[in-house]
Amino acid sequence: MDATIDEINIAAAEAWQAFFIYRKLSLKQRADFMRSIANEIEVIGEELIETAMIETNLPAARLRSERARTIFQLNNYAAFCESGQWLDVRIDEANENVNPPKPDIRKMLVPLGPVVVFGAANFPFAYSTAGGDTACAFAAGCPVIVKVHPGHAQTSRLVANAITKAAANHYLPKGIFSHVYGAAPAVGEALVKHQYTKAVGFTGSFAGGKQLFDWGNQRPVPIPVFAEMSSMNPVFLLPEKISNDAAQIAKLYAGSITLNAGQFCTNPGIVVGVDNDDLKKFINVLSEEIKNISPEPMLNAGIYKNYVEKRAAALSQQDVEQVAVSKKESAFNEATATIAAVSAADFIANPLLHQEVFGPYSIIVRCVDMTEMVAVATAMEGQLTATLMATNNDVILHEALVETVKNICGRLILNGVPTGVTVGLSMQHGGPFPATTDSRFTSVGADGIRRFARPVAFQNWPDELLPDELKSSNPINIWRTVNNELKK
Amino acid sequence: MDATIDEINIAAAEAWQAFFIYRKLSLKQRADFMRSIANEIEVIGEELIETAMIETNLPAARLRSERARTIFQLNNYAAFCESGQWLDVRIDEANENVNPPKPDIRKMLVPLGPVVVFGAANFPFAYSTAGGDTACAFAAGCPVIVKVHPGHAQTSRLVANAITKAAANHYLPKGIFSHVYGAAPAVGEALVKHQYTKAVGFTGSFAGGKQLFDWGNQRPVPIPVFAEMSSMNPVFLLPEKISNDAAQIAKLYAGSITLNAGQFCTNPGIVVGVDNDDLKKFINVLSEEIKNISPEPMLNAGIYKNYVEKRAAALSQQDVEQVAVSKKESAFNEATATIAAVSAADFIANPLLHQEVFGPYSIIVRCVDMTEMVAVATAMEGQLTATLMATNNDVILHEALVETVKNICGRLILNGVPTGVTVGLSMQHGGPFPATTDSRFTSVGADGIRRFARPVAFQNWPDELLPDELKSSNPINIWRTVNNELKK
Repeated sequence: MDATIDEINIAAAEAWQAFFIYRKLSLKQRADFMRSIANEIEVIGEELIETAMIETNLPAARLRSERARTIFQLNNYAAFCESGQWLDVRIDEANENVNPPKPDIRKMLVPLGPVVVFGAANFPFAYSTAGGDTACAFAAGCPVIVKVHPGHAQTSRLVANAITKAAANHYLPKGIFSHVYGAAPAVGEALVKHQYTKAVGFTGSFAGGKQLFDWGNQRPVPIPVFAEMSSMNPVFLLPEKISNDAAQIAKLYAGSITLNAGQFCTNPGIVVGVDNDDLKKFINVLSEEIKNISPEPMLNAGIYKNYVEKRAAALSQQDVEQVAVSKKESAFNEATATIAAVSAADFIANPLLHQEVFGPYSIIVRCVDMTEMVAVATAMEGQLTATLMATNNDVILHEALVETVKNICGRLILNGVPTGVTVGLSMQHGGPFPATTDSRFTSVGADGIRRFARPVAFQNWPDELLPDELKSSNPINIWRTVNNELKK
Repeated sequence: MDATIDEINIAAAEAWQAFFIYRKLSLKQRADFMRSIANEIEVIGEELIETAMIETNLPAARLRSERARTIFQLNNYAAFCESGQWLDVRIDEANENVNPPKPDIRKMLVPLGPVVVFGAANFPFAYSTAGGDTACAFAAGCPVIVKVHPGHAQTSRLVANAITKAAANHYLPKGIFSHVYGAAPAVGEALVKHQYTKAVGFTGSFAGGKQLFDWGNQRPVPIPVFAEMSSMNPVFLLPEKISNDAAQIAKLYAGSITLNAGQFCTNPGIVVGVDNDDLKKFINVLSEEIKNISPEPMLNAGIYKNYVEKRAAALSQQDVEQVAVSKKESAFNEATATIAAVSAADFIANPLLHQEVFGPYSIIVRCVDMTEMVAVATAMEGQLTATLMATNNDVILHEALVETVKNICGRLILNGVPTGVTVGLSMQHGGPFPATTDSRFTSVGADGIRRFARPVAFQNWPDELLPDELKSSNPINIWRTVNNELKK
């Protein structure tokens, strides 16, 4: 049952009250709470995997590894939270001997306030209820309200119970976490527009994310909305590399395009090459591989319907050629792996072909030459990732392409596949619009904590009244920039 | 003469072309360019001061110190640019021995693209043509298009010439900097909405900044708009402190409220106290001081007209009392220093009284008790600064007030005045909306560079093809987080 406006108001008010308690907890206390959530998720055991299997059609092995990733994220972000490095502490001590005299000023990040999290259909654990956005918000010092994803509400309830238990273990107020049901857009709208909501995290479709972004900006007091939305994750085949390894690359990509029915935000949806014998060889091998792919059930009927429609729309465009489809019979809800092809000129001219087809689908863009490949990259929207299949010579010789591609993506992969998003500080999961609504932040890795914090400078405060993070003796031993020098 | 759309298109196209050259310059090359700008500004000499005096009515001494500040900013941000610390480099080396194996990933900030800067009326040097926004953009690796402030177009032209000379000295393409005239909103709109514009910096009124913010968000591809808009900079008088030092605080604040005709974004526009004999003493002393303030000319006729109207509107509100005005006669364009007073209940109920009156004006809010003071703080919008006049005991005893105030501001001053914004890493000049459009960033201090950059992760690149910032040997010797450890 959808939450009523009264229920949303209560959740928001409780979150607001909890904020003023939770924000004062030490970094260690926040980290302990997060580790406790990880532990409580582990304690749920097989019930969690079985429930998610029923709700998402994802295989057990995938769900087990996603659960491990979720637990790793909570522990990893907890450790980074505790390190204090992300607080960006800057201390400038007073100086009476300059004109004008300088007061003592000390700056650190403080939490924004309650964060509303919309979970992802395709990651019931790692980017949902206790996923990356929630972990980052808790690390930053923010209470969280999760809008339950209707695709896996039971799974979400189990995880929510784990968070609630962890909160109780640490004597945290009820409002630190709320779990709000709602399939209707009105629930999401009320949550995003609530005066006590200070930021939003979202992973999903372009239409959904853009709507939240607009709501966030249209408020009397606008708030940041971090939506990770849509990406084609283009792959560029450079001449020397494709001449050396066409068959091997084709086999690698057949796997990446069809992994878990292609239901990844980093699924490679476009492959761009120069139309020559090497590309023909690549296409032939890729086609053979795709024909032998066994159909897999998609996450839910809505996503399946969407795949069927978007795939049909793309294939029906004039000049788009269907190159290969899986020959294996597919049942209802099972996605048929598909490779299409189009000329660069037609691709550039047709914006529909620039849109993500969420599922095991990829379109090959044939260029006349490398100049046209640069034109294709220039015509592309912002992307989470871009991949160059290239020798070192290729990278050096085709600098214009490399620079253009670098400018449209958040992660630039050389000779690999975009699927498989490592959790770590070095990861950037966020690219120019429409990949995300704010390319300056990441939604994977502990740097994502910063999305939910802002700096506050304390001017002329006596040491004993400052937060520990800013005291001269550095009692919690964190990295700080003191009088322009980074030190511990 | 306002720029035509054709001229704007040319400036934008040149900036876009320059971007692909400038972004590849080393940190040292960018820093040298910035230092060269500082030098060329110095070379202009007295002509710059004289021109600005005519255009802004600001006194020579103030303009000289602002010029020094501008030069300091360029040199200081250049040094921080060169340090590379702001690039937030994170390196996670490959690890084959984990499941799944980890690829080598290295992340750093890269520039967003051309930045449009709208200068401030009240800072013809430090927050205009070669001011903080421009310096940050150049440090980040972004070309700049300045929309000339019509209030000081000749001053701006002189500074623009200095930038152009510095660019020529460093063989930089023409598009690295453009200077666009335009009093009409259409010029600003065309600049913000241009496809090649990737970010906007603005300092000015709420109406102006909010308009740019909305334009930025309404684009097919939204861009960040950093507008520093309006702030009342509330001052809270706590019981023990005001009991000890009422007269001294009143004298300090008479100066801060009226400095340069109150034309600072950090001008203290609200003073909040508990209505008792101590507050009466404060008001009496403040009133005597204000009566003796000599009127000063405002920056221009538009700002003067605005002051007269906003001041009159505030004073005409029911229950608002005029407490003191300067007794000295004022000529046309000279602002009359004014102190008003209102009860906390009336202040809370009347949103008009929460709006900035740009000039030497401040309203005293009388509270029944400290609980009502918390209610006043709770009712306040976001602020650049807030100030507590408080003893240590006051801070400890009135935690609810301190926490509420911390939550609405970017800089929290204890026993000082908000005017005087030190340039340094510890400075936060940016607060919750409507003080600025993005409280997560600062527009003063070298941390402002980050506004114009975004992270890009390089996955699986051989060392020899990586930028110097990311090479394993750390050839430019910058701080980096390698396998979760911060080091050089």
